[in-house]
Amino acid sequence: MKKIIVMGSTGSIGTQALDIVRRNSDKFEIVGLSANNNIELLLAQTKEFKPKYICIRNEKLYDELRFNVDPEIEIFKGEDGLCELATVIEGDVVLTSIVGIAGLKPTLKAIESGKNIALANKETLVTAGKLVMEKAKENNVSILPVDSEHSAIFQALNGENRKSIKNIILTASGGPFRTYSNEQMKTITLEKALKHPNWSMGDKITIDSATMMNKGLEVIEAKWLFDIDLDQIEILVHPQSIVHSMVEYIDGSVIAQLGISDMRIPIQYALTFPERNLLELPRLNLADISTLTFEKPDFCKFECLKIALDALKEDGIMPCALNAANEVAVDLFLKQKIDFLQIPKIIKESICDIKNIMSPTLDEIIKTDLLVRTLILKKYDSQ
Amino acid sequence: MKKIIVMGSTGSIGTQALDIVRRNSDKFEIVGLSANNNIELLLAQTKEFKPKYICIRNEKLYDELRFNVDPEIEIFKGEDGLCELATVIEGDVVLTSIVGIAGLKPTLKAIESGKNIALANKETLVTAGKLVMEKAKENNVSILPVDSEHSAIFQALNGENRKSIKNIILTASGGPFRTYSNEQMKTITLEKALKHPNWSMGDKITIDSATMMNKGLEVIEAKWLFDIDLDQIEILVHPQSIVHSMVEYIDGSVIAQLGISDMRIPIQYALTFPERNLLELPRLNLADISTLTFEKPDFCKFECLKIALDALKEDGIMPCALNAANEVAVDLFLKQKIDFLQIPKIIKESICDIKNIMSPTLDEIIKTDLLVRTLILKKYDSQ
Repeated sequence: MKKIIVMGSTGSIGTQALDIVRRNSDKFEIVGLSANNNIELLLAQTKEFKPKYICIRNEKLYDELRFNVDPEIEIFKGEDGLCELATVIEGDVVLTSIVGIAGLKPTLKAIESGKNIALANKETLVTAGKLVMEKAKENNVSILPVDSEHSAIFQALNGENRKSIKNIILTASGGPFRTYSNEQMKTITLEKALKHPNWSMGDKITIDSATMMNKGLEVIEAKWLFDIDLDQIEILVHPQSIVHSMVEYIDGSVIAQLGISDMRIPIQYALTFPERNLLELPRLNLADISTLTFEKPDFCKFECLKIALDALKEDGIMPCALNAANEVAVDLFLKQKIDFLQIPKIIKESICDIKNIMSPTLDEIIKTDLLVRTLILKKYDSQ
Repeated sequence: MKKIIVMGSTGSIGTQALDIVRRNSDKFEIVGLSANNNIELLLAQTKEFKPKYICIRNEKLYDELRFNVDPEIEIFKGEDGLCELATVIEGDVVLTSIVGIAGLKPTLKAIESGKNIALANKETLVTAGKLVMEKAKENNVSILPVDSEHSAIFQALNGENRKSIKNIILTASGGPFRTYSNEQMKTITLEKALKHPNWSMGDKITIDSATMMNKGLEVIEAKWLFDIDLDQIEILVHPQSIVHSMVEYIDGSVIAQLGISDMRIPIQYALTFPERNLLELPRLNLADISTLTFEKPDFCKFECLKIALDALKEDGIMPCALNAANEVAVDLFLKQKIDFLQIPKIIKESICDIKNIMSPTLDEIIKTDLLVRTLILKKYDSQ
């Protein structure tokens, strides 16, 4: 029995992870769950999976939760509670499916306590890739990717010598605005941006996909996860999202992972690796799909992609600043306080204000994150 | 230094294999070469690669060869000579790139003498799959596929547990007549059939590709090579020949190997496995290729494919009979003694005459092969 802690169990990835556990009750056991605010779903999940520990990030909801939950279940609360949950002795694997930089600290704690990480929180590596990978190495901990693209690369690397890698090719759907003209880009509404052509995901990541910032963040994540140079990472637009990513080897061979657009495949792989378990889903039928297309990304139209790669080139604290600026800008867009095209504009100007720090500490990362957020909110949220 | 014997060194695969050796002279050494009739090229290869042993299958050419070759080089001749070459003490790997059933006996001898096999002769497994794989197991010998499709599957299986395989998906270009109507199929000339859209190969295999018998033979080969049931092997027509084949796993993940249409990639992989070596070739550029398409095979139009799968279902000696009938029929077509559409007709009727033998011996295989050939030639070559 693999004992699993799901941080962010009420979100999109969290609920799908629990579906995998539900389908494999002979292999997996839930020892911990956490939610931000969705107390109703957390209660239902607690009833079903009977974890020893749960955590509610919004401390105001603690009493209500305590009242409704079996007294034998320990309940943690707030940011500190997440760190406590991440380190409980019973856990083997922590699935980090919290959105945003909030996932960083508990993930580091989980690593320090020797737990393998099934990583669905990409901000962990975007903001603190160097720190996290060093800590993982020190503690002999595996970081198993849950993101479909990184899982694809991880699968395409299976059994291969890392020295044989020539390039990593990250595929991107191109989002809902891939074929938009520059004029059309000016007409993007929140409603349009929330409609992803292939994947059903949370709001934040859906907007990141529409701006293609998502792919920029994934490049940064891939760099750390696979210990590879930026110039060895290529982005290839593939609107059908069937080829989830590829690895090109030095002998000219390219290994790709393909599948239907269902996150349960990469989630399960992260939990069962190095084995594969049966997963009853509709089959990938390429004869029915008939056509797969590929094109170069448009760095002019999707400025966020360019900004992200530039931040990775600068390295140090810049990807952290980028991530903070993006989180706030996307949030402002979701609240309809800014337009779609203001997202890259805000990110760009706020990064320019930041002085770089190479090899930043956790404190410096958290301070920079806060600083960037404050600066943007001061300027745009009062409008 | 890996010491290599190339059987069939003057053919398409043989010359490409020698190009790989030429590019990696620090890793590979040629200890043996063989040719059927092309004495001129064999002499040039002998001069360049300085093997200890060479073999000429056409015994009449022995004297001419002996006269022109350094006396220190041992020369074998005829069918028996091939078996001697395949078992010389110095060899580590035998690359079997002889066309047709002629490759079977020397391959078995090489296996018995403990040499790993880089298998480019698909008839070896088609005619005697059970026997060959049993012998390989007994002698703890690896059978490394050179065929691009089987190499793709082999690469897609790297690092994976065989129990996790759901299906093997063999891709097929569909050959030059994929889009032909039934009426057009009647107008196929030798010239048209010899023009393969993607691959540059020998004449026999090019015709097999045009009839799609090639894919049928590959299914039989895959069955033995990967120890898998017939109903776990699918054929998917993919005219661009970029995805060389795929493995579908029980969790819904599909791993594919892609590459440009250059046989040197799978040849080198068979020789360097489990490592990969640098191979300087044009890169696969999917953005330039832009579109990959997939469709179901047409078993009605490509009757050879159906006949091959039926022979595999019957098992025993039937795939051997199929192969013999196909070799003779293709040869008759190449000599313009029969029409294109007579190929499946002849194969079908000659298989019907054969009484099946389950688990045939080498003798029975060779006798059946000869019997089928004789019957067809008697009927069609005298016309």
